[in-house]
Amino acid sequence: MDPTPQIARARDPLLFTPGPLTTSAAVKQAMLHDAGSWHFEFNARVAWIREELLRVAGLSRAAGWEVVLLQGSGTYGVEAVFATCVPPQGKVVVLANGAYGERAVQMLRQAGIAHTVLRTPEDQPNDPAALEALLARDPAVTHVFAVHCETTSGLLNPIAEVGRVARRYEREFIVDAMSSFGGMPIDFAACGIDYLISSANKCLEGVPGFCFVFGRRDRLLACAGHARSLSLDLAAQLRGFDKNGQFRFTPPTHALLAFARALEELEQEGGVPARAARYRRNHETLRAGMEALGLRAYLPPAVQSHIITAFPFPAAPGFAFGRFYRRLSDRGFIIYPGKLTQADTFRIGTIGRLFPADLEQLVHAIGQTLAELGALPVRAGEPPQAVNA
Amino acid sequence: MDPTPQIARARDPLLFTPGPLTTSAAVKQAMLHDAGSWHFEFNARVAWIREELLRVAGLSRAAGWEVVLLQGSGTYGVEAVFATCVPPQGKVVVLANGAYGERAVQMLRQAGIAHTVLRTPEDQPNDPAALEALLARDPAVTHVFAVHCETTSGLLNPIAEVGRVARRYEREFIVDAMSSFGGMPIDFAACGIDYLISSANKCLEGVPGFCFVFGRRDRLLACAGHARSLSLDLAAQLRGFDKNGQFRFTPPTHALLAFARALEELEQEGGVPARAARYRRNHETLRAGMEALGLRAYLPPAVQSHIITAFPFPAAPGFAFGRFYRRLSDRGFIIYPGKLTQADTFRIGTIGRLFPADLEQLVHAIGQTLAELGALPVRAGEPPQAVNA
Repeated sequence: MDPTPQIARARDPLLFTPGPLTTSAAVKQAMLHDAGSWHFEFNARVAWIREELLRVAGLSRAAGWEVVLLQGSGTYGVEAVFATCVPPQGKVVVLANGAYGERAVQMLRQAGIAHTVLRTPEDQPNDPAALEALLARDPAVTHVFAVHCETTSGLLNPIAEVGRVARRYEREFIVDAMSSFGGMPIDFAACGIDYLISSANKCLEGVPGFCFVFGRRDRLLACAGHARSLSLDLAAQLRGFDKNGQFRFTPPTHALLAFARALEELEQEGGVPARAARYRRNHETLRAGMEALGLRAYLPPAVQSHIITAFPFPAAPGFAFGRFYRRLSDRGFIIYPGKLTQADTFRIGTIGRLFPADLEQLVHAIGQTLAELGALPVRAGEPPQAVNA
Repeated sequence: MDPTPQIARARDPLLFTPGPLTTSAAVKQAMLHDAGSWHFEFNARVAWIREELLRVAGLSRAAGWEVVLLQGSGTYGVEAVFATCVPPQGKVVVLANGAYGERAVQMLRQAGIAHTVLRTPEDQPNDPAALEALLARDPAVTHVFAVHCETTSGLLNPIAEVGRVARRYEREFIVDAMSSFGGMPIDFAACGIDYLISSANKCLEGVPGFCFVFGRRDRLLACAGHARSLSLDLAAQLRGFDKNGQFRFTPPTHALLAFARALEELEQEGGVPARAARYRRNHETLRAGMEALGLRAYLPPAVQSHIITAFPFPAAPGFAFGRFYRRLSDRGFIIYPGKLTQADTFRIGTIGRLFPADLEQLVHAIGQTLAELGALPVRAGEPPQAVNA
């Protein structure tokens, strides 16, 4: 590969990450305006965003649903649900099989909220039977928390089965759908979801700056006074929107303008089913291409999402993640490091404004880079591949 | 005024607000790139921002200072200081003379942190003598909290005097400098400041999405384990930056790119003294122009900041804030509603990418609008002004 002098490239690298991710040019261009956070035009845009989010989720105000936008990253949204919606005597069971489940445990610990954890290994989905046994023996548990797509591994947890158990035992079900909402259909009723959290900069292809929480209006308002935090008080945030259509505190105005545009683009694409189909094609293109290079995904297909895929490091002496990452970045492809505790992996996101052709180019660049590093896996019975380096 | 058909204008309105405010075109254009939150180039930019913020504040790591960036609005930063830096047995005295002091009280209440309040009327600065008397009689107080520029009224509180009292009694001093930092020089040593919070979208002329907290490194790290919130844990956030230069959770990447550009523009302008001089000229232009219209500021000049100015509603029967606001907005000028409890006011911010000529235009538009509404104050001995409506 040519040593590239230190001048700017003509285009930005593509982000194969779980977000912040590659967004469309028009989404970014929507940020070329300063909006007044008190101004009626801006607040009409915020109101439209909330209507549209409910529509995308298949929910309605007539059926009692609401969506609350909250400044900060997705993690703030998860903590806001715990801080606001778990009553003082409440107790949460966390279904954990990765870093995002463990993060929920950490926030419950710091907030002083009673909790227990049901862990499965990082390559095993949540266990609804274990949950059922727990709920049967622990009446103190008021809330069940699960992570839909555990971004640590890319594993898709069985939220429909988990939700059925929660509903059978009449516990509230909180779903962290950060990296899945908008990228695959989610049936709130079938999954028995009471609260669902996602973020602007994931499958809705906006930019980071806020998250949003779906919940039932009457239950959210009934939580008034619970919140352990003013900033993360979802009931107060909803009352603020009710009062004057505004965020209580300064909103990320530019990120909201970008998000409105992103929602328009979701509709133009054909909504969540069309987007899910594109992401699935992205994932399948990646998976097939990587297998042709001799790289198999960490997870079996049965539990693998089309959001993000973890690949174990190639068992080749020339492989070093830092060099691999950097050379791919020099070629204009930014991938994501691993986060598993059980295996050394890197991750490749297939969400954002990416298309199967982009995944083909990425796979080609990965092949070239591994060849340069002398780290292409050698398959039994095959001669080492010749790659133009 | 012509009824304007519903087509887009050639330029955006100017925001005479306390933030989100009008930013430069280049600041917004810096957001036309998607950055990977794990990527080394982005993290180098974040590191540069932190260095530059310390430099702008006149602080250094050699002298033990640090700055921690935190996702969310400025309010999150204030709550993060309380949640992280006030130990379990700590107690905060809040000096309040407006909505932002009261907001601090509310967050301490929700977080379950012991506190007391020293109130002065909304047009009276904090009272250092009352603070001294309190600290002399209440050894339980560990922290003093003041709002530098109380945006409710535009009043500038005497943080140097307050800080001297806090230091004499060996209590930590927390300053909410949300709307003042970068817009006027702040001498941390002279004011005895231990923690100072500000936000990206105020006088540094960035876009909203994060806030930042200055504090001493050893004290911040000594607070590890205190935080009542994972999201708002400043000690953990600092350890995260130490570990790999990254935010613990998804940062508002675009807002950070914009902020880096905004800091470059601050330097180009001549730093904080030059910016403070521009804002002062903005304020003086506004004040003189409004007085010529017969509109006097709510506060006397001695306590009035050059950040934002509150004006009582004109005592004229034709005045209605909603119509006044809307017609000014139609003319391309967005002002800010009042927030005082003691008087009906509107507010005009003089910060952001605004120049004295913009304030001259605003004053002219206000004069035209009031004349249209039949709400121009009539001065004794003068005939009513003729304005081309």
